[in-house]
Amino acid sequence: MPTAKTLTDGSVAFVARSARAAARRLAQLSADTRNKVLLAAAAAIEENSREILAANNRDCQSAKEAVASGQMSPAMFARLQISERGIAQMAKQVREVAALPDPLGRLLEATELDEGLILHKETCPLGVIGIIFEARPEVVPQVASLALKSGNAVVLKGGSEAANSNEALVSVWRDCLRRYPDVPEDSLSLLQTRADVLELLSLDRDVDLIIPRGSRALVEFVAKNSRIPVLGHGEGICHVYVDLAADIQKAVAVVYDAKVQGPAICNAAETLLVHEDIAAHFLPLVAAKLKQAGVEIRGCPTTVSLLSKEEIVPATEEDWATEYSDLILSVKVVPSIEKAIGHINQYGSRHTESIVTEDASAAAQFMNEVDAAGVYQNASTRFADGYRYGFGAELGVSNSKLHARGPMGIEGLTTYKFKLYGNGHIVADYVTGAKHFKHRKL
Amino acid sequence: MPTAKTLTDGSVAFVARSARAAARRLAQLSADTRNKVLLAAAAAIEENSREILAANNRDCQSAKEAVASGQMSPAMFARLQISERGIAQMAKQVREVAALPDPLGRLLEATELDEGLILHKETCPLGVIGIIFEARPEVVPQVASLALKSGNAVVLKGGSEAANSNEALVSVWRDCLRRYPDVPEDSLSLLQTRADVLELLSLDRDVDLIIPRGSRALVEFVAKNSRIPVLGHGEGICHVYVDLAADIQKAVAVVYDAKVQGPAICNAAETLLVHEDIAAHFLPLVAAKLKQAGVEIRGCPTTVSLLSKEEIVPATEEDWATEYSDLILSVKVVPSIEKAIGHINQYGSRHTESIVTEDASAAAQFMNEVDAAGVYQNASTRFADGYRYGFGAELGVSNSKLHARGPMGIEGLTTYKFKLYGNGHIVADYVTGAKHFKHRKL
Repeated sequence: MPTAKTLTDGSVAFVARSARAAARRLAQLSADTRNKVLLAAAAAIEENSREILAANNRDCQSAKEAVASGQMSPAMFARLQISERGIAQMAKQVREVAALPDPLGRLLEATELDEGLILHKETCPLGVIGIIFEARPEVVPQVASLALKSGNAVVLKGGSEAANSNEALVSVWRDCLRRYPDVPEDSLSLLQTRADVLELLSLDRDVDLIIPRGSRALVEFVAKNSRIPVLGHGEGICHVYVDLAADIQKAVAVVYDAKVQGPAICNAAETLLVHEDIAAHFLPLVAAKLKQAGVEIRGCPTTVSLLSKEEIVPATEEDWATEYSDLILSVKVVPSIEKAIGHINQYGSRHTESIVTEDASAAAQFMNEVDAAGVYQNASTRFADGYRYGFGAELGVSNSKLHARGPMGIEGLTTYKFKLYGNGHIVADYVTGAKHFKHRKL
Repeated sequence: MPTAKTLTDGSVAFVARSARAAARRLAQLSADTRNKVLLAAAAAIEENSREILAANNRDCQSAKEAVASGQMSPAMFARLQISERGIAQMAKQVREVAALPDPLGRLLEATELDEGLILHKETCPLGVIGIIFEARPEVVPQVASLALKSGNAVVLKGGSEAANSNEALVSVWRDCLRRYPDVPEDSLSLLQTRADVLELLSLDRDVDLIIPRGSRALVEFVAKNSRIPVLGHGEGICHVYVDLAADIQKAVAVVYDAKVQGPAICNAAETLLVHEDIAAHFLPLVAAKLKQAGVEIRGCPTTVSLLSKEEIVPATEEDWATEYSDLILSVKVVPSIEKAIGHINQYGSRHTESIVTEDASAAAQFMNEVDAAGVYQNASTRFADGYRYGFGAELGVSNSKLHARGPMGIEGLTTYKFKLYGNGHIVADYVTGAKHFKHRKL
């Protein structure tokens, strides 16, 4: 139990405790009510666009100075800015979440344990979710809508560079909730400081899950300091393995897309593995194509021997363990599929791994033995994304093997409970043998 | 990467790394092979019963002295002993696990992302499981069989009081595995010391999940020191709420069973909540029944006023937060179902909670608003158990909301991966608009 002191109005413990109380009420709302409020929130974002843009403008003014003095990257500045079109996009995404199927109360299993004793395994909300993110203010309506749809309360902490924008968006959202007497305003709260984050990470009684979205440093800081389960991913070292039975044309296209189409994204490839029987033919072709996009190639000794000097620099041991997030690709020639799998399981981050091959049994071996959230045959690693997987909305990517693995949809915000319906049933009857379990799946 | 030093033969890091290698091979075995080996292991336990019983006898000799000097409880001694019948029971349980449906390669979802681009979400093993347990040597074949069935390697650490028994069982199991060239012996390993446990808990690269089975102190020690996800449960404070619309006869039976049928088990009830409109009628009846079993009742002021002085002592604030694991029951009279739910959400351990009522809407409210792995209507909390739920075999109970909640069956040892089958598909085609996603559920 927190002391009276820590529960003073406005403290993080108070915010989390209020979120817990809100979550209990949210869990009772019908799908209709949740969807109705989501549609109202989408409209509220549009109706209050002037206030939101003005707040964002204040953030951008300070950010401009930070960019000028070199304290903020132009890329981060770009992510911070909200346009008129950005407002429309936010509202559209909230409406898309409203249109998703209801994730709650789904009957996962039903068993007749005995006459009149029925066990249901049913989805329900997790409770309170803490989300810690950087820059992009559009995360606010995105996660607020996913949380409301799934009956969860959420405590947010955004980056200080977007403080005004985040506050405006949270306040529009809460104003909207206030119009519905059944819907608790504390379903969405915003924390202010970095010290608040540390306190939040300790409140394991009132917060059920932490999702960090941002840089690797942020994710690692959260994972290290949290007493609450964390879902996120620190790094993405993805590989493409070109098997000896590869279609060369497909292999060139897949490697090029996996490296070049979005090099800064976690599902981009960092290392290319090539079977030695195909390397002399394949490597010059792919190298020429990658060169067009300005990709730097760092190769193992065999790769170096197969390419011209202008095309390649030697790779070091460190290269195999590096996420470049840039137009750099390390390349290794391997003598067998087993060596390729071994390399991936040693250096990969269990994110997404692809084999290019026309040999179904090689593909099956690769896809079973490689330990990763996504294992692909003849497809670019860049497909690892909630939208591309058809989840409707992506909450983030998890590199945990527990709960949610890989791109997380709204299901990542649900758990289940067992509901047992009896008629005065007692265990003693089954221990004495007076009654016997049926265990019939319904 | 661990250094060469930590990977010396016999070190915990070496054991874990060997388990990881074994897990990769286990993931490739067909269900037929896994089941064949399980049946052979069951037979091996029977064939080696003399060695196992002799080893157990050595443990029991030392334990007898510990009991005589008061260092071991008679209950723990009882759990340590293996009988001829215990051997048969172990073999029977291993055969039951062999008979379970295959938990691997289950297709959870299939989506046609686009023409020729098919996404499968498929169950697969977690990898390496660390299991830390006390006393009961029968845990060895139980978890070894569940792990093998689900394609996982396991690293065990049992209590020192059962060291000889555990070693005999592990060595029978490994001898059996050695007869199959495809099946790695390192699928099952045994650690020796308490220091080994601490080291194991730090090996997050080679161990995917830790399951502690034993006292609350053990579970809390593991949770506090682990860098690896932990599934277990520290305590069980379960409640029965007798609603104003309760059938009195059912209520007496359920409360009696929940408290008396197995008071030391985590799913036993610790607190009885009674609606005030029914208390004067119900409490004397249930108190009389509980008295027959020697249950001590600790009551709130209203309860005290309704029962005779011999039947009751006043409860303190601490009582509401105490797991007695004994024939003691705290009793509180509440003015409403909301107050009952509030009490449970404040003091409960989110394990198993039961309402006794004939009112379906009261039951629905209770079962939705109470935050627990199991929520029951008109049934004893003692039903919260993997065997009673029909899981075939129980791995433990989880009080986590993530991954596995409540009694955990063999599914708790699986995760899933996304398998994407393409034909040279690249993301650029979808970004440029040359192609469009179909997202058709198959």
